[in-house]
This record gives sequence, structure tokens and C-alpha cells, in this order.
Amino acid sequence: MFVIGERINGMFKEVRRAIEERDKRVIQDLARRQLAAGADALDVNVGPTKGRPVENMIWLIEAIQEVTRAPISVDTPKFDVMKEALQACRNPAVINSTKASVTDLDRYVPLAVETHSQLIALTIDETGVPRDVDGRVMMGATIVTKAMEAGLDLVDLYIDPVILPVNVAPKQPKAVLGAISQLRLIADPPPNFVVGLSNVSQGCKERSLLTSAFLTMCIGVGLNAAIMDALDKDLMDAAITAEVLLEKQLYCDDYIAAYLGNR
Amino acid sequence: MFVIGERINGMFKEVRRAIEERDKRVIQDLARRQLAAGADALDVNVGPTKGRPVENMIWLIEAIQEVTRAPISVDTPKFDVMKEALQACRNPAVINSTKASVTDLDRYVPLAVETHSQLIALTIDETGVPRDVDGRVMMGATIVTKAMEAGLDLVDLYIDPVILPVNVAPKQPKAVLGAISQLRLIADPPPNFVVGLSNVSQGCKERSLLTSAFLTMCIGVGLNAAIMDALDKDLMDAAITAEVLLEKQLYCDDYIAAYLGNR
Repeated sequence: MFVIGERINGMFKEVRRAIEERDKRVIQDLARRQLAAGADALDVNVGPTKGRPVENMIWLIEAIQEVTRAPISVDTPKFDVMKEALQACRNPAVINSTKASVTDLDRYVPLAVETHSQLIALTIDETGVPRDVDGRVMMGATIVTKAMEAGLDLVDLYIDPVILPVNVAPKQPKAVLGAISQLRLIADPPPNFVVGLSNVSQGCKERSLLTSAFLTMCIGVGLNAAIMDALDKDLMDAAITAEVLLEKQLYCDDYIAAYLGNR
Repeated sequence: MFVIGERINGMFKEVRRAIEERDKRVIQDLARRQLAAGADALDVNVGPTKGRPVENMIWLIEAIQEVTRAPISVDTPKFDVMKEALQACRNPAVINSTKASVTDLDRYVPLAVETHSQLIALTIDETGVPRDVDGRVMMGATIVTKAMEAGLDLVDLYIDPVILPVNVAPKQPKAVLGAISQLRLIADPPPNFVVGLSNVSQGCKERSLLTSAFLTMCIGVGLNAAIMDALDKDLMDAAITAEVLLEKQLYCDDYIAAYLGNR
């Protein structure tokens, strides 16, 4: 499981404040804590912070790189911010994200190849988020084709089939599961699959139950990455347990401690 | 989700004592509590109790039938005990279970048809539990064929792909998931799928995590029944949550209370 810790995001007040006041310690502490809890990479999103996004992003990346060599997932919808931020990455980088429209893919896929970055590609295009499995599979096929044409190795591609909150879009979790099940057969070896996990339970009362069950079901059909709250121990335990049941991690009585200790 | 409560089993000391001392209240209390917690049916197994198995079984069934009309899952490996026990069932009955060997299917499938019972069929034959997906799928196909030949409606058939403890058989959970994924395509509508859930974590340290994650993953690929501990609230919550995410239950903020209240 490739766990991308979601907590360095200007949506969180303490992070916003830290960015605006250039308080490195808060960011570096969040980086260290997420990695210790099992994150493999760190998502970085400036959110609705004051100041120029590109400067805030580069400051965040540099603060993190002082304390870890872990991959950084550069999370911005702006292409120019992405390009400049990637220049600041000495750590391995993940581009988070491109959409599946041809114009976006034609910019982002070559950028991933040129900068030796991994790429997260959402199954969203000009028409929005597909309502069903088929729409996701078609966009996933477009993404894979564009990646192969441009020479992006599929091991460096993460398809994100876009989960929406179950309280407003109750058919979407099943559509995501179906899309992963089908798209994992598209190539051998297949691309990776990632979800922005917390979104499934946005605004719901039973957030912990919903998030954990959805993650577990997704892993069961082939998900191998998630942008998620690595500091949520119950959630990390569920992810590690699901992988043990799929024999992706070796079983031992203390498999959770072993997983975290082997890092 | 068709939840078959596992607690009326002579393996548990209090149940064994209640059977041997003909103490109805213990059994009736367990029946009521499991149903209130979300069980749809009650498994009944005399376990290693003193006395004649058939008399103990019939006493259990009659004790339960005094307090509920819920289906009773008659759990015995002995064909003669099964036959006599089914005669005692006024409630709907589930035969738990037949193996997939032809000689067993040729006895149990007609018995299910004659007694209007549902049937649980294990993917085990003379050669034992299959090591992989393919062995389970082949036995599942034999089971379905025999059921269709004998006129057993597939809605009354539950295929149990047999889970073994992950600590001694780490490849088995994945094989069970694969078997359900494939066998659900064998007929339209497909047969039902059930597992004896607690077995997955037998002898393991993290029982609760393993059981819950395995149940959730199985539901994600098509499991729609389980013999399980309905009194384990965390486990029931996980099952209900998984069904909400598959839109088998309607989402509302209090979906767990709604599920239990609608019963």
C-alpha cells in the first residue's frame, strides 16, 4: 500500500497558519508524524492560503525536504504552479493531479516523463465525474493510452477513479469499486489505483466506519494507494490488515508493529 | 446481508451447559439477543455436548421456536441428524451444510428440495479444501449444476467457499475473494455466498481487525451472507456500512439505527 499522507494541506487551520507565518516546525512535525504512522509519501497542498500559491508551495516543499527524503505529492490544480514546484523537488515527486481530458493529458503526461515524476490521473474530463463504471473505465483507458504513447511507465501512473461523498452520491462507491476491478485488467502489469479517501465520508456522521470500510473494499478489488489520514490509527490498521489478508504483507501475530517497524 | 448468528453452539460453555441441563432460558435469551443485534437467522450446533446429538438438536430447535419465527440454520455434519432435525423445524430452515462431493450433493440437494429448506454447500470434497481459486470455482460449478438439475432454486442456495485461519493458511483469504468474484458470474441471478467468518482469525491476535476487514472485503466482491457473531457490534456495524457503500442499504446519517430498526 502506497499511503500518501493528506495532512499537509492549507485546508487545515494549523497548516494555513504555519504557511502564512513561515513556521517550519509545524510542517516538519506533521511530515515526521505521518511518516512514523505509516505514510510512504506526503501530499502538499497550499489550500486557501494568503500569498502567492507558487511561493507557498515551494516553501512547503523545501521545509519538508529538510527532514525527509520521502516522495512529495504536489497537489495543485494549476499547471504553472505544478511546473515550478517540481523544479523545487529534490525528493521523488508525484504530480497530483491531471484530469483525463486530452488537453490536460497532453500537458501533464509529458511533464511527468520529463521530470521523472509519478502521475495521478483523475477520471474527470470536461463533462465532469462519470456517473457510472463505464465512464470511468473509458477515461481510464484514455489515460493509459496517453501514458503508453508518451513513454510513461505504468508503474509510475496512478489512476484515481474519483470518489464523491456517499451521502450526496450514493451510487459512486460501487462505481469506483467496479472501475478498479475492470481497469486492473487493462494492462499487465496494470497501472496503480489511488483514491482521495476522506472524500467518501465528507459531511457524514459515521465518518470513521465509512472511510475504513470503503478503503478495505477498495483494497480488496485492487486499490494499492490512497491519499488518506495516516495519523488515523484505526484506518492505517484497517489498511495493513487488508493487505495481510491479500498476502501482500506477511502474517505474523504482531503484523501491525512489524509493518510499521519495517519502514 | 443475511446474517446467521453463530452463538447457539455447544462449543460455547454456557450453551453446552444449557443443553445438558435443558435450561431453555439461556438459549432463548441468546436467540433474542442475536436477533435484536441484527441476525436474520440462528445457527444451531450441539457441539461436543453429552447425550444423543439428535435429541439435543431437536430440543434446541424447539426451545428457539418458542420465541421466534426466524429461520434456523441446522448445523450438523450428520445426515441422519439433519433429516430428523428438519422434521422438527416449523420455522424456515437452512441446511448447514453439504460438501461438494457428488455423493453428498445427491443426498442433500434433494433433501433441501423436499423440505423446502435453503442449503449451504461447502467447496470441500474428498480431496479436502481447494488450495486456490480454481478448485473452488470448479466445485462451485458442480454445486450449481446439481442444484439446477434437482430443481433447487439458486436463491435458496448458499455457496460457502471455505475460509481457513489466515495464520496457518495465508493464501486462503485471497482465494475465497477470487472464488466469490468468479462464481457470482456463474448464473443470473447468481446463487448466494456465505462464509463461516470467525474461522478467518481463529488463533490470531488481532481477531477483531482481521474478521472485520475480511467480511468487508468479501461483501465488496459479492458476499451476501455470513455465519458470524451478531453480538459483536463492531462487526455488525462494518457489515451494515459495507452494504450502505454498495447501495444495498439506503444512506442516511443514522443508517445503523435505521437498519436495526427496520427489522
